[in-house]
Formats: sequence, structure tokens, C-alpha cells
Amino acid sequence: METVSENRCFGGTQGVYSHSSEATDCDMTFGLFLPEEAADGPVPVLWYLSGLTCTHENAMVKAGAQACAAEQGIALIFPDTSPRGAHVADDPAYDLGQGAGFYVNATQKPWAPNFRMYDYIMQELPQLVFDAFAIDPERQGISGHSMGGHGALTLAMNHPETFRSVSAFAPIANPTAGDWGRKQLSAYLGEDQSAWAAHDSTLLMAEKGFPGEVLIDQGADDQFLDLLMPEALSAAMAKRRQPGIFRMQAGYDHSYFFVSTFMSDHVDFHADALYA
Amino acid sequence: METVSENRCFGGTQGVYSHSSEATDCDMTFGLFLPEEAADGPVPVLWYLSGLTCTHENAMVKAGAQACAAEQGIALIFPDTSPRGAHVADDPAYDLGQGAGFYVNATQKPWAPNFRMYDYIMQELPQLVFDAFAIDPERQGISGHSMGGHGALTLAMNHPETFRSVSAFAPIANPTAGDWGRKQLSAYLGEDQSAWAAHDSTLLMAEKGFPGEVLIDQGADDQFLDLLMPEALSAAMAKRRQPGIFRMQAGYDHSYFFVSTFMSDHVDFHADALYA
Repeated sequence: METVSENRCFGGTQGVYSHSSEATDCDMTFGLFLPEEAADGPVPVLWYLSGLTCTHENAMVKAGAQACAAEQGIALIFPDTSPRGAHVADDPAYDLGQGAGFYVNATQKPWAPNFRMYDYIMQELPQLVFDAFAIDPERQGISGHSMGGHGALTLAMNHPETFRSVSAFAPIANPTAGDWGRKQLSAYLGEDQSAWAAHDSTLLMAEKGFPGEVLIDQGADDQFLDLLMPEALSAAMAKRRQPGIFRMQAGYDHSYFFVSTFMSDHVDFHADALYA
Repeated sequence: METVSENRCFGGTQGVYSHSSEATDCDMTFGLFLPEEAADGPVPVLWYLSGLTCTHENAMVKAGAQACAAEQGIALIFPDTSPRGAHVADDPAYDLGQGAGFYVNATQKPWAPNFRMYDYIMQELPQLVFDAFAIDPERQGISGHSMGGHGALTLAMNHPETFRSVSAFAPIANPTAGDWGRKQLSAYLGEDQSAWAAHDSTLLMAEKGFPGEVLIDQGADDQFLDLLMPEALSAAMAKRRQPGIFRMQAGYDHSYFFVSTFMSDHVDFHADALYA
């Protein structure tokens, strides 16, 4: 693992690191914020998964998460959203290929050799960071925005043994039914839709839900509402009587101005679960 | 004036606007955050001047200032750092020409026709925003980072009738004596150094200071300490017995991770003066 940069930030350290990844067969870069409490021993950690076109950097510089995480003594991990590199398959569209991994393990050509973001986030990157940094594997929460909100919700519902808490900002909520999802799941996983269900928050919510509380924020003026389909997830949460909060935020859109506005609520929500 | 974008943010609105500027003879773009209190009448305003290579956008998305400004009910203005355009003079160096206006009125060729950032910030942009938005011209504070910290301090000391409060993050503190300054003041204002003194915080501090308190934050691990020369300003402040605080922050560098860490202190500092 190589240190790209380390900056003092809210009493802790905002680092950027790169490493050669087996899961994705390319070099990967991630951001890690360690609060000053990490100097005294392992701290809880909140994973933040980003959306389409993002790298590890967007949320790290725009979400204002470090201020809240420092107050709570929580680490933050900002992974990249896909494998990258000249030898990695890509597509001219912004919503397929590099920058658009959708947090699945691709089984189809040309994506299968590299697009294994599910394994990267669930196995390889955790092993790496838990070995190298003072982070407590027993106290993990996960959140994300848009495609990353989809990732956070699906990974958490598939792995409640790993994550104590989950939240999302404007998640792609029902990708098996919408244009942000059908195209990508078809490309990465093939036409057999039975393989898609494990990667759809609405279907997972209907099938099993999450053992803890769930927090979702969605902007009412989000320009991508038709693609995100929050109403499907909201209905599934209500039908299951899933403990949690679904907030429709008047006037907010899909930008990081929306995410940053509610970031402290999310960090505090995770802290409640991780310190319980 | 044209609206480039408006995003809901911390209960208020983060807008970006462009307009044709007489002072700089080109189109200029600025960011303006209005807290929700602006719906009920004029609110105090904090000007934030950015550093070398920045546009209106850097601090607007990276400084985390809106969270604090919303809490205090204060507007934020993020001007650009120079005139821009194909017809505007430029230099291959990052620290001269476009992106590096230094908040002066240039008198020398080829800069004089456009590089009039002093007049733009002190006259044209205030008239525009005070006419168009619910901002109180009687309650203005000013801050900035690096070249923008230089701008904030020099404008405030030259115009104490306009600004009730001033602060700076890692300002270029003594430009008449350093390599971030001598080159630019020479290019913009000519070789006669008597014209430079009005644009040097250390010299202005020695000559007249500021009637209110001054807050300066400087990272002790700033990679540009030799260019910023904070020790000169610190000495001038102490010699004048200038009311205020000069903080050398251990471990912090020149990045926005430093600025964002101390932003809430600065916004609260200005709020104390603007609501006094």
C-alpha cells in the first residue's frame, strides 16, 4: 500500500492510499479519515460509497463528513466506485464501466475480469484497512449516495453480520425496475434476472430487511427521481415495518449541497448504533 | 445577471451567478449562499476571497462554510480570483494572470484593461449583490485563504468603514518582501514600490491596523511558509498591539482540509462582530 497524501484535518488525518487489488486486478485508490482518537486504539468506522462518475475524492472533499466524524470519533472510508485503468473495460456512457461499478461482481464479458466491486468492498479493502489502521471491525456502519446508496443498502442487507448500521442519501432504490440499473445489471450480470435480486434494495427490503434502524434521505426536487425510484423502497420499508426513518426533504436536489446538509444527521445516526 | 445554478443547502440557497463586469471588462461568475433568514429581510454577509488558481467554486464546495453560515444566519459571497476569457491577458505561470488577480487594480500592460479586482470586489460586485439580494451592507465581514487572505486583510485595513470584521487562513502576509508578491506587484503595478505598500498586510498593519479584532489561522506544516511569511504579520500585529488572535496550528498544511477545520471558528468570529 502506498500513501498518496495525508492532510491534518479536524484534529485527525485525511489520508489517500493506493494499492494493487486482486479483486479488481488493477490499482485502486481510497480515502481514509482517522479521527485523533485512533491514536489511542481502534475506532468505529463508517463506509461511504459514492455515486456514478465519482472517485474516492468527491465525498472526501465535498460532503463535510470529517467535521462530524471527528466530533464522534469515527473513521471514514471513501472507496473508489469501480476498477480503473487502460487495461480495464469501459463504455462511453457515464453510467456503465469505469466510474459505475454498481457494487456487484460482474460475470459477463468484458466486465468480469475487473468489475468485482462487491468482493473489493466486502473482503479485500476491509482486510487491508483493518490490518493497517486503528479501526474496529466489530463496529462498522455503511452509507452512500445515489449508486453508492444502492451499494450501502444492498451490502448491509446482505451482510447484517458485518454492518451494525446503514443509511443512504438518494439511493438508486429499485435498480431491477429502472433505467439506472437494468442496463448495468444486464451488462454486468447477464440477462437472467434472478441474479439481479440480491442487488436491489427494494427487493431485499421486501425479502429480509435490516436488523437495525435504517435512515434514508431523499431530496423532493431531485432531478433524478424517476431513475432513483425512492417510492418503491419507501413502500417496501413501510410494508415490512422496517425500523427506521425515510425523509423526503423539500427543496433539495441530487447534489452534494444536499448530501452535506444532512451529513451530520447521518454520522450521528451511525454513531448511535456503533457506540450502543 | 444570469443564474447559473441554485441548490438548496442547509435550509438556504447556494447560488452561482454570472454577469458582465465593467470593472474587469469581462464576464464574471460568483457564488452566493443565502441562509433561510434572508427570506425575512437583509442578513449580514461574509466575503470569502480565494487563493491562487481558484475560481468562485473551490471554497463553495470544499470549505464547509455553509453549515456554519446557516447556523449563524449569515450570507457568504465567493467571488472569482481574477478576470477570465480569451481576450484577457494571461501568463503560463499559475501565479500570474488568470486565477491570480491579487486583488489590486493593475496599472501596467498587458494587465491594466482587465485586472481590476480591487474595484470589482470593493465597488462593482457589492453594488450588484446588495441591489439583487437580501444582504445588509451595514454588516459586512471579509475572510480568505492564501492570496485571498492577503486580499481580505488588505481590503479590510484599507476600508474599515466597509468591513466590521476580518480574518484570514494562511494569508500571503508580506507580499512586497516575498516571491508570492514581488513578481505580481511588479507586473500589475510597476517597478515603483511605493505603489505596492497599500497591498501588503504587514505594512498596513504597521501603518494603521484594523479597528476591530483580527483572526489569523496558519498551519505550522504549511508547505508554503517561506512564501506566505506569517512571521512578519505576526510581529507587526504584536508591535501594534492589534486586538486579535494569531493561531499557529500544529500539523496543518495549506489545503482545504486545514481551511475547513477552522471555518466554523472564523464564521463564529465574524458573527460575533456582525451581530454586535
